[in-house]
Amino acid sequence: MKKTKSNFSNCHHGGIYSVKDSKVVKIDFSSSINPLGISKNVVKSLIKNINLSYIYPDPNCIDLKKDILKYLDCNIDEIDNIITGNGATELIHYFSSAFVRKKVMIPSPTFCEYELASKRNNAKIIYSQVKNDFQIDSEFIVKNGNNPNNEITTVFLCNPNNPTGKDSIKQISEILEKIDGKITILLDESFVEFVNSKDEKRYNHFVNLVKEYDNLVILRSMTKTCGLAGLRVGYAISNKKTIEKMSSKIISWNVNGLAQIAARVALRDKRYLKSAKKIIETERKKIFSVLKKNNKIKPVATDVNFYLIEILGNKSSTELTNTLLSKNNLLVRDCKTFTGMNDKFIRVAIKTPRENKELFRALEKAL
Amino acid sequence: MKKTKSNFSNCHHGGIYSVKDSKVVKIDFSSSINPLGISKNVVKSLIKNINLSYIYPDPNCIDLKKDILKYLDCNIDEIDNIITGNGATELIHYFSSAFVRKKVMIPSPTFCEYELASKRNNAKIIYSQVKNDFQIDSEFIVKNGNNPNNEITTVFLCNPNNPTGKDSIKQISEILEKIDGKITILLDESFVEFVNSKDEKRYNHFVNLVKEYDNLVILRSMTKTCGLAGLRVGYAISNKKTIEKMSSKIISWNVNGLAQIAARVALRDKRYLKSAKKIIETERKKIFSVLKKNNKIKPVATDVNFYLIEILGNKSSTELTNTLLSKNNLLVRDCKTFTGMNDKFIRVAIKTPRENKELFRALEKAL
Repeated sequence: MKKTKSNFSNCHHGGIYSVKDSKVVKIDFSSSINPLGISKNVVKSLIKNINLSYIYPDPNCIDLKKDILKYLDCNIDEIDNIITGNGATELIHYFSSAFVRKKVMIPSPTFCEYELASKRNNAKIIYSQVKNDFQIDSEFIVKNGNNPNNEITTVFLCNPNNPTGKDSIKQISEILEKIDGKITILLDESFVEFVNSKDEKRYNHFVNLVKEYDNLVILRSMTKTCGLAGLRVGYAISNKKTIEKMSSKIISWNVNGLAQIAARVALRDKRYLKSAKKIIETERKKIFSVLKKNNKIKPVATDVNFYLIEILGNKSSTELTNTLLSKNNLLVRDCKTFTGMNDKFIRVAIKTPRENKELFRALEKAL
Repeated sequence: MKKTKSNFSNCHHGGIYSVKDSKVVKIDFSSSINPLGISKNVVKSLIKNINLSYIYPDPNCIDLKKDILKYLDCNIDEIDNIITGNGATELIHYFSSAFVRKKVMIPSPTFCEYELASKRNNAKIIYSQVKNDFQIDSEFIVKNGNNPNNEITTVFLCNPNNPTGKDSIKQISEILEKIDGKITILLDESFVEFVNSKDEKRYNHFVNLVKEYDNLVILRSMTKTCGLAGLRVGYAISNKKTIEKMSSKIISWNVNGLAQIAARVALRDKRYLKSAKKIIETERKKIFSVLKKNNKIKPVATDVNFYLIEILGNKSSTELTNTLLSKNNLLVRDCKTFTGMNDKFIRVAIKTPRENKELFRALEKAL
């Protein structure tokens, strides 16, 4: 990949509404959400409670926060350590409004909302290009963060990183240990629950460090983990003072009533998340063994539920994306619009075996 | 009422979650929403579409905006004149972020979000106390707005005003005509659709003026009109440049997928809104003839679906509110927390005949 050149104008997202006619999309591989869709328990509970749409939702999401604590089962035990949002995205903006000042540091490539939120708060951005193995460059981040001339107030980290799919647990730990404690860190763990970890403690690793590092904010997305993209629920965990600062930016009734209900049921439905993880794990292996055989592309090994495909021939990512859509009604993410990427990568979500097979067949023909 | 003294610290809202134990509320008269609750057509459509909760919603709400245009049937014909929000409240904050600078003018009493949003943008507030007949003081607003020393950038108007219930169409027209065109005006018409108007054009009166007044932004709330409080949908109408400025503050996917579906169905369900208006109209008359007979209180004539009750005896609004809740499980809005009001007023929503009767009986005993 080329070195980072900021061509940021606005956030480009995937999803069926990123194409002109949303109805032409048969399978959406551009949205990296739970391959199982919404859980049946959530559907049942929503149907049962639909009449509550009439009532103003709890503006403080007390019951939801209690259920998040139970779900996390970590060393945090008070709801004052949690803020809930209209999707994790809303919380990125609250965080930025509270903590972004002069300059920020953002890995490149990564989720575009960090750039958008920083720009809205008039901050200059120092990009930290990922290394050749797509891992976060912790050395660069620590060095530049600790240089007082850089006036860095905030660092954004996405782990595992979107769109590279890499879990950089070592690098992030190093950053936390070595970076100036005055620099606030947003660690977006939207995809962490899809990591194939034999050690269940992995999921709480950084959450448990919130007590140790006052400058750490952990972000989680139920949109992705629980397939609630249409309902919008995310949450962040940090020390009470930081949560209070973020909460001072909140819009009244930001998390809607049905979203609160769905989220509470989803958090209890551990079997559903386990099934999704099993599919992702099995499919991850299969996908790589299949795609490696095609010498026109190179799949990038991933730790999560999406992966990059590098296009080795002359075709651009836009050409390939357009062909897959027009000929097969399959939508993948053209990575050209990620700051620090080029037009030789597409991002693909891991979906059900049947759906993934359909993509393999389409790719064979399109390349 | 006393002259305005700003005691604003944070927004206090009504609703069942404003009390310690939400379960003790049998009927919520503190939320001024459609007395019929959510329409049956909306419920049906939500049940049918619940599986779509899995999909990211349209971030631009294109179809919803088209339906809003159809519903309004006014002289505005492009979706670029509309912005949709996670409730009207979110749009108050986008508006403020885009237009509030040094100083703003806000009627008193009124909906607290204007104060909150102004404070968040570091503006000083000049309050314009409503007159003795509870009408907006247009003369004060024009005079102070046009005085360059005041450096007013923005005026917030709520019409009909919450919590006074008065439709100040003449006064607002006068403000629009006479105030400096550089001052941006947010005209919150969240309750306008509940006004008993024989002239259907009333509802579009100010919307149609958006073409004439570049400084005018109209705000509407589907939360209140269509009983979608739990789903959160609001919209604003203005010239394209203003809408673009407000949109530059938007959070990605701010209006959730089920909310978009519900709103589209609700906009077409004109029979439901008509029925609600009929109930409100009939009950409005009944309520006043009943309450006037009680010499311990004085109901304030209203134009909308809620009304003030002035307490004439020694009892405070907090005492009365607490008695109604603890003895009858009925929640009314204690108006003490409105800037510019005192502890002698409660605000009550007009609900169904059976529910209103229950309040009459409880009031008799509680006073």
